[in-house]
Amino acid sequence: MPTLYHAPNSRSETIVSLIDAMGIRDKIDIVEVTIPRQDGTGGPDPKNPHPEGKVPYLVNGDDHIRERGAIITYLTELFPESGLGREVGDPKRGEYLSWLFYYQGVLEPVILLDYLKIDDPVLNATFRDYDTVLKRLEEGLANGPFLLGDDFSAADVLCVSPFLFFGEGLRRSPVVEEWIKRCAAKLGAA
Amino acid sequence: MPTLYHAPNSRSETIVSLIDAMGIRDKIDIVEVTIPRQDGTGGPDPKNPHPEGKVPYLVNGDDHIRERGAIITYLTELFPESGLGREVGDPKRGEYLSWLFYYQGVLEPVILLDYLKIDDPVLNATFRDYDTVLKRLEEGLANGPFLLGDDFSAADVLCVSPFLFFGEGLRRSPVVEEWIKRCAAKLGAA
Repeated sequence: MPTLYHAPNSRSETIVSLIDAMGIRDKIDIVEVTIPRQDGTGGPDPKNPHPEGKVPYLVNGDDHIRERGAIITYLTELFPESGLGREVGDPKRGEYLSWLFYYQGVLEPVILLDYLKIDDPVLNATFRDYDTVLKRLEEGLANGPFLLGDDFSAADVLCVSPFLFFGEGLRRSPVVEEWIKRCAAKLGAA
Repeated sequence: MPTLYHAPNSRSETIVSLIDAMGIRDKIDIVEVTIPRQDGTGGPDPKNPHPEGKVPYLVNGDDHIRERGAIITYLTELFPESGLGREVGDPKRGEYLSWLFYYQGVLEPVILLDYLKIDDPVLNATFRDYDTVLKRLEEGLANGPFLLGDDFSAADVLCVSPFLFFGEGLRRSPVVEEWIKRCAAKLGAA
């Protein structure tokens, strides 16, 4: 059985929410570990095999999976019957992968840089800015209530995660706010 | 036929190298477009359907794929016979996906922040620093000449790309330097 290393109130909550939304809680062994926290409490847990003591970390036999986007791609491939991923060959497979990589490569760094008030022309040229990210999300939502259209997917689970985690602290537009509410309802996080 | 929007001397070179390494140049329509350059030349190209005028961008029928990690995952799934990806069900599928997402979510931002001399404790806690990235690459190379072991893969193509693009400007350790040379030889970029 795959094992997920998880710490409450951390990025790994996204994966636990996904596991619940996929209905596969009985198919994953979830091991709680400690992690170093921003306030100086906690610390790396010797039980956690992640090379930097971070979470989430998924181990399945000899295969080790890090980074939320990779874990989400992997789990939705392993349990396609959940319907939350888009399988290889699906007409939206590319769009699905794009949102997961866009989250990891653009959305998360931009949110963090905006929060830290770090403004640099090269960073902006590379990652774009917060308003561009909101515009991309709105374009994604132009064709339906969720990023891939009519159906809630794991792409929503990842992309909405910082808005649920940081709450009102993150700016959002009315269209994005309505999507956050729909996702929260799907995840039982309303 | 899938269409790749590409600009020479940009991030999309990675995808063109991959296409050549996969031996699928005759199966992809490569369209050259202009992009805005850091020196103020160039500009978005009206032929490029990418919402921000960036490259690379892959279009396959109604599916649109952005971000290099997503394009690499998608192309190696579409042409599994190239052997450069690891298919769903492969014992290294998770490791393969992890390197692609690690590149996009950690390696690229850390290289850029290091280059721009932006140092922030929250950024370091989130992304780690340049030396940690080198250490991760060295761990990956502990079991063979390439990141996934004995065989060169698309994970190498993406992770080595900034070292090939920026050349000596990017610090590297001796182990990483040897890997860069092996990858360059595989890509005909030596």
